[in-house]
Formats: sequence, structure tokens, C-alpha cells
Amino acid sequence: MDKVNLREKFSSFAEQWAPKIVGAVDDYEVKLVKIEGDFVWHRHADADELFLVVEGRLRMDFRDRQVEVGPGEMIVVPRGVEHKPFAAQECKMMLLERRGVSNTGDGPANARTRAPEQI
Amino acid sequence: MDKVNLREKFSSFAEQWAPKIVGAVDDYEVKLVKIEGDFVWHRHADADELFLVVEGRLRMDFRDRQVEVGPGEMIVVPRGVEHKPFAAQECKMMLLERRGVSNTGDGPANARTRAPEQI
Repeated sequence: MDKVNLREKFSSFAEQWAPKIVGAVDDYEVKLVKIEGDFVWHRHADADELFLVVEGRLRMDFRDRQVEVGPGEMIVVPRGVEHKPFAAQECKMMLLERRGVSNTGDGPANARTRAPEQI
Repeated sequence: MDKVNLREKFSSFAEQWAPKIVGAVDDYEVKLVKIEGDFVWHRHADADELFLVVEGRLRMDFRDRQVEVGPGEMIVVPRGVEHKPFAAQECKMMLLERRGVSNTGDGPANARTRAPEQI
């Protein structure tokens, strides 16, 4: 029941594209992540995924369009929808998704897959 | 798959202690709420509950202590734990909890119970 300061948590790690767990609500995990550059196309067949931008700008690419998401804005990627996060400069985000959801989506792990670490 | 701007959503309502749904991840709802003053003691036997302060200051009262939560800070109240939110001045928060969880906890509805509205 201790509070979590997002700024302090963000300052405790530098690695990009490596989500860190900072809290949980039932079986759902709150993660912080820093991203910069491009990711891989992927989808989660059985899981929605929320992205809340804390600092910087996220561009969420879908196959048919792109959505720019700035600080204080969030987007939910519905289950089954292919997506690819991108950020021209470093972007800090809070993620929310069910425990066990892989950052690179369904299918076998790849070079960008990271198991989230609790911080 | 549209983005949600938290500031715009907050500016669209004034009522305090009435959570508004702004998004969902699977069966979990993201809600915005404005609070000021005192609430009622309650608990959710089967549900954790996350409070992320966006603006202002939350004091989360527990039976044995109080936790001050400021902007950019969050706290998870574990299932079963009695709690009572308080704010000396208006505080804007994002909540995360399973769909159907009552704002006043288990048991019959009372004068502070609100069914969340989607905005």
C-alpha cells in the first residue's frame, strides 16, 4: 500500500523497449516503458493494451492509419489489431495489460521480446 | 482506437465523486474522477483498485495510517482493505478497476454510490 512515484521510477532505468512493472490490479499489470525509434508489427489476439503517454510523443501505427499521442493522452489498442509503436525522440509511457502478455505479441519470441522486470 | 485526452475529458464534467469511464482494457475500466472533501469508509473484497493522481493531492486513509499521494503518483489499494479517499482541495484522479466494482464498495448502495457514466 505504498505509493509509487512515476518520475522516480522512470529515473531508475534507462533501457528502452523494456517494460518495467510498477504495480498490479488483480491480474493486470501497470508497466513503465521508454521507447525511441521503431518497433515490430505485432498483435495480441486475446488482450487489449493501454498506452498512456507521460512524456514525449508516441506515434501508434496501424495498418490503415497512424495516431499521434502526446503527454496526458492515452490510446487503447483492441485485441487482435496489428500495431507498431514508434517515437521520433524518447517517449515515456505507462502501459496497462493483463499479466503474461508479451511485448511482441503472439507467436514465438523474437529479438525485441522482453520479460518485464518488477522495479 | 481514437486517443483520449485526459485534460479534455476532465474539463467536460464538474461533478465530484462521480467516476466517468474513459476507456477499457478487457474487463477493466479506466475512469476519471474529481474529489474534494471526505468519502465513506469501504472496501472491495474481491478487487484491487488503482488511484493515479493527475492534479491536486489525495490523502488515502487506512485504518492504521494515511498515505499522501501527489501528482504523478499512484497507489493500489489491495482487495479487502478498508480505505477512505480524502482531498482538502479538488483532486483529479485516474482510477483503474474491474468493471462492476462499486465506488462505495461491497454491500448495499448508499448516498455516495454512483454508477459510472461513459464520457
